Amino acid sequence: MAVGLKAPQGVLPVAGVRLGVGRAGIRRGLSPDLLLMALEEDACTSATFTRNRFCAAPVVVAREHLNAARPRFVLVNAGNANAGTGAAGLEDARACCRAVAAAGQTGEQAVLPFSTGVIGQRLAVDKIEAALPEAIGRLAADNWMDAARAIMTTDTVPKAASRYIATGAGDVTMTGIAKGAGMICPDMATMLAFIATDARVDQAVLETLHRRLVVQSFNRISVDGDTSTNDACVLIATGRGPTLKPDTPAWKAFEKALLGVYRTLAQAIVRDAEGATKFVTIRVEGGVNEADCEKIARAVAHSPLVKTALYASDANWGRILAAVGRSGAEVDVGRVALAINGVGVLSAGEPDPLYSETAGSRAMAGEEIEIHITVGDGKGSYMLWTSDLSHDYVRINAEYRT
Amino acid sequence: MAVGLKAPQGVLPVAGVRLGVGRAGIRRGLSPDLLLMALEEDACTSATFTRNRFCAAPVVVAREHLNAARPRFVLVNAGNANAGTGAAGLEDARACCRAVAAAGQTGEQAVLPFSTGVIGQRLAVDKIEAALPEAIGRLAADNWMDAARAIMTTDTVPKAASRYIATGAGDVTMTGIAKGAGMICPDMATMLAFIATDARVDQAVLETLHRRLVVQSFNRISVDGDTSTNDACVLIATGRGPTLKPDTPAWKAFEKALLGVYRTLAQAIVRDAEGATKFVTIRVEGGVNEADCEKIARAVAHSPLVKTALYASDANWGRILAAVGRSGAEVDVGRVALAINGVGVLSAGEPDPLYSETAGSRAMAGEEIEIHITVGDGKGSYMLWTSDLSHDYVRINAEYRT
Repeated sequence: MAVGLKAPQGVLPVAGVRLGVGRAGIRRGLSPDLLLMALEEDACTSATFTRNRFCAAPVVVAREHLNAARPRFVLVNAGNANAGTGAAGLEDARACCRAVAAAGQTGEQAVLPFSTGVIGQRLAVDKIEAALPEAIGRLAADNWMDAARAIMTTDTVPKAASRYIATGAGDVTMTGIAKGAGMICPDMATMLAFIATDARVDQAVLETLHRRLVVQSFNRISVDGDTSTNDACVLIATGRGPTLKPDTPAWKAFEKALLGVYRTLAQAIVRDAEGATKFVTIRVEGGVNEADCEKIARAVAHSPLVKTALYASDANWGRILAAVGRSGAEVDVGRVALAINGVGVLSAGEPDPLYSETAGSRAMAGEEIEIHITVGDGKGSYMLWTSDLSHDYVRINAEYRT
Repeated sequence: MAVGLKAPQGVLPVAGVRLGVGRAGIRRGLSPDLLLMALEEDACTSATFTRNRFCAAPVVVAREHLNAARPRFVLVNAGNANAGTGAAGLEDARACCRAVAAAGQTGEQAVLPFSTGVIGQRLAVDKIEAALPEAIGRLAADNWMDAARAIMTTDTVPKAASRYIATGAGDVTMTGIAKGAGMICPDMATMLAFIATDARVDQAVLETLHRRLVVQSFNRISVDGDTSTNDACVLIATGRGPTLKPDTPAWKAFEKALLGVYRTLAQAIVRDAEGATKFVTIRVEGGVNEADCEKIARAVAHSPLVKTALYASDANWGRILAAVGRSGAEVDVGRVALAINGVGVLSAGEPDPLYSETAGSRAMAGEEIEIHITVGDGKGSYMLWTSDLSHDYVRINAEYRT
C-alpha cells in the first residue's frame, strides 16, 4: 500500500563501493537477507545511530569499531535485530565481524555490523557465516538494487535514490538505500540507510555534513512515534571522484543534491509506512522557536485520532486543534490558523467563514495531504512527514510475529 | 467490547444533589443527551479542567463561573463539544447558563456548563433550551444512572460508582459518574466526571483533596495519548451529612473510600476504551524519581507497537524495551527487569533464562495484563492504566463522524 512510491529506476553505481547479497535464511522467504558492502581502502565513513537506551548489540559494536578503525566492510542482516539479547548478542555481533574480517583479510574493527528485524532473539551467526561466501562472490558496483531488497523487513518497496551532478570540481555521483516501515521515529539518528558518494571529502567535514543532512531528512519522519533500537544511517565518501571543499559553488551543488538523496529515502520510508494510505506533510509556522514548532508537529503526527481521521479522509480538524493544544508549545490561540491542502479551516483563532465540510472533504480525499498550522507571529517553523493509522497498521503489527 | 466492565449496580443517592435528564436531540439516537444537576444551596464544589490550550467554550465559562459564585446547577450536553467554535461558542455556552438560571431563579454564574462530543460545530442552544423543562421536571435524587447514560458518547457502558461508610463522625455517602472512551490522556485534569458526597467539607480542604485524588486516578489513565479539549472533573460536597476534618480517623476512611470512587470511574473509562480488548496496568519501579517513572510508563502506554502486540496477545517484549529506551528517562540498562503478569522476561538487563515463548503467550492471553518494569534501584515509582490498539479503535475513530 505504499503511497506514491514505486521501485526506483536508474540507481547509479558509486566508484569505490561494491555490494553483494546472500541468503542466510534468517528473514522468512527465500530471497537474499544478507548484505555485504566493500569500501575503497581510503573511503571516509560517517554514521549516526539510534538514541534509544536499549540500542541493539550491532549498534554498540558498530559505534565502537567506527571509533577504532576506518571501515572496509558493512554487513547487514534482515529478519533479526539482535536487540535485547544482552552479552550474548554482543558476542554474536562480534563473531559476524570476525567472519567478514577473516574472509576480507582485514581487522575485525574494519567491519561495521547492522541488524534489523525482530527484537529479543539470538542471531543465528552460523547462518550468516554460511551465507557470506555467496555475498562475497557477488560483490559488484552495480548491485545497489539487490542491496536495497536484501535489507527489507516489512517494507513493500525497495528504497534507493541516486543523483549525478557536474560541478566545477568535476562530476559527482551519490547513491543511497534505506529500509524501514514501522517503529519509525528517528531521534537524532535514522532508520537503516546507507549512502555513498565518490566525492573526496575530508573526514571532519563529512561528519558535520552528515549530521546536518540527517536533521533535515530522517529526523523529520515519524510513522508511529516509536524509535527503533537499531536505527543507523551511514554516509560513505569513497574519494574516487573529485575533491570537494565547503564554501565553494561545487560544494553547494553537492550538498543540495545529497540532501535530495537523504530526503527521497526518508520520504520513501513514510510512503511505505506500515498500512499507510496517505503521505502527510505537517508544516508549522509562527511559533516562538523551531523547538516549539517541532513539539506541535510531533503532537499532531503522533495523535492516533488525527491519524485515523486521515485514514478516513475525514476533515475532522478539531482533532488537529486538540493535538496542537496539548503539545505543550506556546500557542497564541487568537492567532491560530489551519489549512488542509490549501483549504482554510481556521484563521485568527476563529472558524474560517468560507470553510465548508464539502471543501474539507475534497481537501482530504487525495493521497498527499499537507496540514499547515500557524500558531502566532513568531519566527519559528518546522516541517515533518508522517503517515495515517489504518486497519492494515493494526493487522501488520498484531500479526508481525505470528 | 468493554473489558471486565458491566453497568454498575447499587448506585446511591447523595443528599443535596438532584439529577434530571432530557432529550435535546444533539447526540444521535433518541435517548436523553442532556443532564441537569441541582445542588443544595450551601454545597461546596471543586473542579479541575483540561490543560489543553484549545479548551472548549464551556470550560472557559465554567472556570469563570466557579471563581465568581457558588454553583447551584451543573448542565451537561453530549454529542457536541462546543470546542473550536471561537467567540460564538462562548456566547452559546453563556446562553445555556442563562436559560438554566432563569428556570432555576438563580444567577447565570451559579450554573456550570459542560459539553462533550464532536469538536468544531456550533452548539444548538435552542434544542438545549427546549429540552430543559423535561430535565427540570425529572429532577430527583435517585437519578444517577440516568445521568450516567445521558452523558455517554462513544462509551458502551454507563460509568458510576458509590461508597457508603460509617465513620466516627457519622455515616457518609459518595457517588460519582463519568464518561469517556477516546481522546483520553487527562493532563492534570480529567474526562467528564461528577462526584458528590453528603459530607460537609471546608471549601479549601475540598480543593486540595480533589486535586490529590485526581492525580491518583484520572491523571493515571491513557487510551490514545490525546488530551481532550473538554476534560473536567467536579467534586461536590453538599454538607447534608457529617462534618469531616482532615487528620481525623473519619477523614482517613472518607478519603480512602472517595479514592475508591475516583479510581473505579477512571479505570471504567479505560475498560470501556474505544475498541479495547485488554485492561493494562503499567507499573514502573526503581527509577531516579516519580517523574522519570511516569515518562517510562507513558512511553510504553502510548506506543502503537506495544498496543498492537497487546491486542494480538503477543509477548513481543522487545517493543516494551524499545519504548522504555526511547522514553528519555534515566535507565540503568544493566539493572532492567521486566515481567508480564508475573512471568519474568528480563532480569539484570539480560533475557531471563527461565523465560519461554509459551510462558509469555500464556501471560498475555488474559484480558487483564500487568506490565512490571524495574529500571534501576532508585526510589521512584509510577503506575498507569491503559488499553490496547485494536481494529475496532481504528474503525470507531475512522467512522466517528460518518
